[in-house]
Amino acid sequence: MKNALKLAATASVGLVAATPAMAAPAAGADTAFIFDTLLFLIGGFLVMWMAAGFAMLEAGLVRSKNVSMQCLKNIVLYSIAGIMFWIIGYQIAYPGFEDAATGYFGSAGFFYPMQDVAAGIDQGSYSVASDWFFQMVFCATTASIVSGTLAERIKLWPFLIFTVVLTGVIYPVVVSWEWGEGWLDAMDFSDFAGSTLVHSTGGWAALIGAIILGPRLGRYADGKVNVFPGTNIPLATLGTFILWLGWFGFNGASQLAMGTVGDVSDVSRIFVNTNMAACAGVVAVVILTQLLYGKVDVTMVLNGALAGLVSITAEPLTPSVPWALAIGAIGGVIVVFTVPLLDKLKIDDVVGAIPVHLFCGIWGTLAVCLTNTEVPFIAQLTGVIATGIFVMVAAGIIWAILKFTIGLRPTEEEEMMGLDKAEVGVEAYPEFV
Amino acid sequence: MKNALKLAATASVGLVAATPAMAAPAAGADTAFIFDTLLFLIGGFLVMWMAAGFAMLEAGLVRSKNVSMQCLKNIVLYSIAGIMFWIIGYQIAYPGFEDAATGYFGSAGFFYPMQDVAAGIDQGSYSVASDWFFQMVFCATTASIVSGTLAERIKLWPFLIFTVVLTGVIYPVVVSWEWGEGWLDAMDFSDFAGSTLVHSTGGWAALIGAIILGPRLGRYADGKVNVFPGTNIPLATLGTFILWLGWFGFNGASQLAMGTVGDVSDVSRIFVNTNMAACAGVVAVVILTQLLYGKVDVTMVLNGALAGLVSITAEPLTPSVPWALAIGAIGGVIVVFTVPLLDKLKIDDVVGAIPVHLFCGIWGTLAVCLTNTEVPFIAQLTGVIATGIFVMVAAGIIWAILKFTIGLRPTEEEEMMGLDKAEVGVEAYPEFV
Amino acid sequence: MKNALKLAATASVGLVAATPAMAAPAAGADTAFIFDTLLFLIGGFLVMWMAAGFAMLEAGLVRSKNVSMQCLKNIVLYSIAGIMFWIIGYQIAYPGFEDAATGYFGSAGFFYPMQDVAAGIDQGSYSVASDWFFQMVFCATTASIVSGTLAERIKLWPFLIFTVVLTGVIYPVVVSWEWGEGWLDAMDFSDFAGSTLVHSTGGWAALIGAIILGPRLGRYADGKVNVFPGTNIPLATLGTFILWLGWFGFNGASQLAMGTVGDVSDVSRIFVNTNMAACAGVVAVVILTQLLYGKVDVTMVLNGALAGLVSITAEPLTPSVPWALAIGAIGGVIVVFTVPLLDKLKIDDVVGAIPVHLFCGIWGTLAVCLTNTEVPFIAQLTGVIATGIFVMVAAGIIWAILKFTIGLRPTEEEEMMGLDKAEVGVEAYPEFV
Repeated sequence: MKNALKLAATASVGLVAATPAMAAPAAGADTAFIFDTLLFLIGGFLVMWMAAGFAMLEAGLVRSKNVSMQCLKNIVLYSIAGIMFWIIGYQIAYPGFEDAATGYFGSAGFFYPMQDVAAGIDQGSYSVASDWFFQMVFCATTASIVSGTLAERIKLWPFLIFTVVLTGVIYPVVVSWEWGEGWLDAMDFSDFAGSTLVHSTGGWAALIGAIILGPRLGRYADGKVNVFPGTNIPLATLGTFILWLGWFGFNGASQLAMGTVGDVSDVSRIFVNTNMAACAGVVAVVILTQLLYGKVDVTMVLNGALAGLVSITAEPLTPSVPWALAIGAIGGVIVVFTVPLLDKLKIDDVVGAIPVHLFCGIWGTLAVCLTNTEVPFIAQLTGVIATGIFVMVAAGIIWAILKFTIGLRPTEEEEMMGLDKAEVGVEAYPEFV
Repeated sequence: MKNALKLAATASVGLVAATPAMAAPAAGADTAFIFDTLLFLIGGFLVMWMAAGFAMLEAGLVRSKNVSMQCLKNIVLYSIAGIMFWIIGYQIAYPGFEDAATGYFGSAGFFYPMQDVAAGIDQGSYSVASDWFFQMVFCATTASIVSGTLAERIKLWPFLIFTVVLTGVIYPVVVSWEWGEGWLDAMDFSDFAGSTLVHSTGGWAALIGAIILGPRLGRYADGKVNVFPGTNIPLATLGTFILWLGWFGFNGASQLAMGTVGDVSDVSRIFVNTNMAACAGVVAVVILTQLLYGKVDVTMVLNGALAGLVSITAEPLTPSVPWALAIGAIGGVIVVFTVPLLDKLKIDDVVGAIPVHLFCGIWGTLAVCLTNTEVPFIAQLTGVIATGIFVMVAAGIIWAILKFTIGLRPTEEEEMMGLDKAEVGVEAYPEFV
Repeated sequence: MKNALKLAATASVGLVAATPAMAAPAAGADTAFIFDTLLFLIGGFLVMWMAAGFAMLEAGLVRSKNVSMQCLKNIVLYSIAGIMFWIIGYQIAYPGFEDAATGYFGSAGFFYPMQDVAAGIDQGSYSVASDWFFQMVFCATTASIVSGTLAERIKLWPFLIFTVVLTGVIYPVVVSWEWGEGWLDAMDFSDFAGSTLVHSTGGWAALIGAIILGPRLGRYADGKVNVFPGTNIPLATLGTFILWLGWFGFNGASQLAMGTVGDVSDVSRIFVNTNMAACAGVVAVVILTQLLYGKVDVTMVLNGALAGLVSITAEPLTPSVPWALAIGAIGGVIVVFTVPLLDKLKIDDVVGAIPVHLFCGIWGTLAVCLTNTEVPFIAQLTGVIATGIFVMVAAGIIWAILKFTIGLRPTEEEEMMGLDKAEVGVEAYPEFV
């Protein structure tokens, strides 16, 4: 569709030029340019901060012997995402730029016009670099999701190599289908801020990874599900709050503009709906776990907040507040019922990322049609399925290649000893344990 | 008074219309609308982040056996505040909206015009949703204060039910008196960002709660005050830094506008004064505890920072820097002397929230008259006393009802064992303790 | 040079007045004033947040017996920096203001015109208070650097007294040379956001402090380097992420303006380069430590991120992305090789702050000439050397005076017992250790 949400600029610039009287930004194109760029910068640093949120959430939910490794993986994956999205990812995700006269990634791609003021002025309604930064942090988010599921039993280097491919190729290909004006976009598929493109992509990659990698030693032994409790609950809580905070940037700045009264009002509504969906996810899990188990499991409640956030991400603008609450609450319910389901299937997801990011990502994507009547359900279903097949196959191939070459898993001795000693050489809490 | 600080919009819009030449925002009403809305969004996410600050502060200051519970309560109370302030709180707090032609909370209140672009344009100088979001996070702050004082010995569900009433009714009623253009506002009472409306309200609710609930088992035994040291000082430090950061949004965005040179300069001055009051609170406590005890108690210093922040909140704009320093330093002194005072009265305040939020909130409210000569002292005193009476009575009734129905406290066995095992089922640090 | 980056206002205002047609901000001077002020406020709160980052990084890397002390020092140094930079620092740093007709620090300096709206309008293109706030948080950063190096063996009060002098005099003098339009500025020395002025100044002060203070007991015993592992790796990781986030404000807002398309596009490019340098620092250290040691040391990787950030800080605007990556990667390499070098010299730097802030600060300052051809290498070299000599001498004198008066070190018994018990009276983790 023409007004693809992530389409960087040409359409909206054309609009401004064509209809100066009505559609032109309030105070001229320059002021709107500044506002839009500022939105990307604020949204960008908030989403960047989500990398810390995933790090804390995962560091809190693994056992102490693997905490340093989890910290390490999270800061490295964010770094790899930045570099890979720059080398090749952005070019794949937004192919329209490749053929443009000025060539965003021309033959001298290493010096592409992110450095060129004129390019920003001529081609868009915001700075190219601000847009790139904002898109990049989304790419990093996708990789963070995988990290949590596969914790405690994957070696460092295969994980990093997978991250190179995920952030450089797999994620950008999915993005190109929709935000890059590809075939899903042409079907009127709609995914405002990435329930499918970001969260499900990460979730599918995590799911196939978990299947190929297998569960942690002793996790499903003697026909039982053995609980390996997280080592630091306040750290996981902090991570959840960081993610919640970052999500205002994730969804809010996906409006892609705030240079008009309408746009900034839309951003405000997105803030409210995003927050309310998370609130509802929390409250739904509190009530449900109390009823089901007689206690309120705090780690499940944290995932309830994230479930609400993922669920509203595909469409945080059109829902009224009650719809936002309903969409978020159902996300919470999904998590409560699918976390044990994965255990029944002996799929070992250390932090619950598959229920949160994949299952709620699917739910959120389909739920778009509840409040946005312009979006055909068949398009949403197609997007979900196509993303699932592509990511499962592409990621599966990479995981399989890694498994049969350098190997994915540490030795049993290393896994029992913990990855911190085995691969990092730094224990996370040397005086506590 | 007419230019009530939190009055959402009509007055200032009228002003703009009436005096386009001088008072009109720099670049037309649309640009000012965007700036004002952006201020609410930035201020809003900073204050939302304070929920994480309270969670970390409290999780750091309780004993390990109650840490998961404290994390749980904090994320759930923030969620309840969001939902309750939407269902009913905002309507009570800002009654002017109820009767408006377009009906902010009309018969079909569930779909109220937060979703309506036109309402924002017609009625305000900023997006309704951005204002709602900003007001909501203040409501959540009030509930966070209560959580800390009552930690370690209150059951989950009575706390949550109290939070429903506090955020849905008690806090909004107090707000309606002043920011909602009520009788305190008519007296020229002044509370810029909520020393009384937010911090004292939370503090009074905590005080009556602590009295009705009683102290933790063994806290005042054998005529002695037994210290139960906090379990994680860096976490409490992190919480304090988060609160300090969030306070720039809390006070700065309470200017409610930044679409003119004057407004944005006022916001800047508020940033400086807010920061300086906190600095002075810290330094005052450092010197005082060194002199009094020969050591510098870090938890008292953290509370010194918060004391400075609460003290400057009633009037962060009119003080010169030396006044801001003085107001903050006196806040720190108050905390040093009132923390042991509460213990003498056998009122068990786990994190020192009553000295910080209630006593410094009173001090800050009265101190307004030192630098803002338009504010009558009698109005300030009236506001302090009226808020105290109303909140103590209203909250006291709720606490009492809960005590004599479902009960407030866990059994002695559960309290000794810790609430994490008793009610949450998840230990915070299973490998450390 | 005339267009000194930190020169607060007069030049650019003149520019606006002189060339309204081309150079004037998009939507008139008032809108640009608001944007520029907002940039300082956002940048300011992000850099303020770095104080929490240093606190967490240092609290994570010291042993548990000194964690409360490290938390205490960090919140107090930030408070002292605020007060000292207000009392005298800003006046020294920006001497141009002293002689101005309106007198920023006149005879009644305690009430200087930070409180005066008119001063802001008349004299600058942004609010004076917003500029002051932004400059102050840089001052605090300098003091944070010293804190980490000298951890675990310096008494509280000499450290605080040194902080008073560093933030009130030493740092401001260095700033006056360049951003205050002093002799280094006249030489065309260039330091965009403070690789030399902030990071090296802190680093030099830490270096001479470490030499005078000596290493921790047992650190270099029996001809060996004894490793004292950090007590909480996720906390150090969190600190690093906080610093990374804050650095977008540190470097981005050092553009000092975003009221034009060009300025906001420059800020965006600075965001990208800042991020990429950090990414490259991380990846360089990952690869290098794997090759050198066969394991990937997470604390070294965290320092690699900071190394990249410090290295790009002297010039985050002119490099293309590949240059930013190269500059950051070399920063990472420097850290890997100089951390053991300091140990060979028996200079005990607890958190690696000297390699990160001093050595990478020097590297970043010299590297300016690689991409900014207007900057003479001799000026950069002069700036590095002059700062080194001045800070080493000035800080050395203070450290020496403190050593021979009140003494720098606790007794051996106190040091063995830990500073938390000896001076703070509050253990950081009473239940864990």
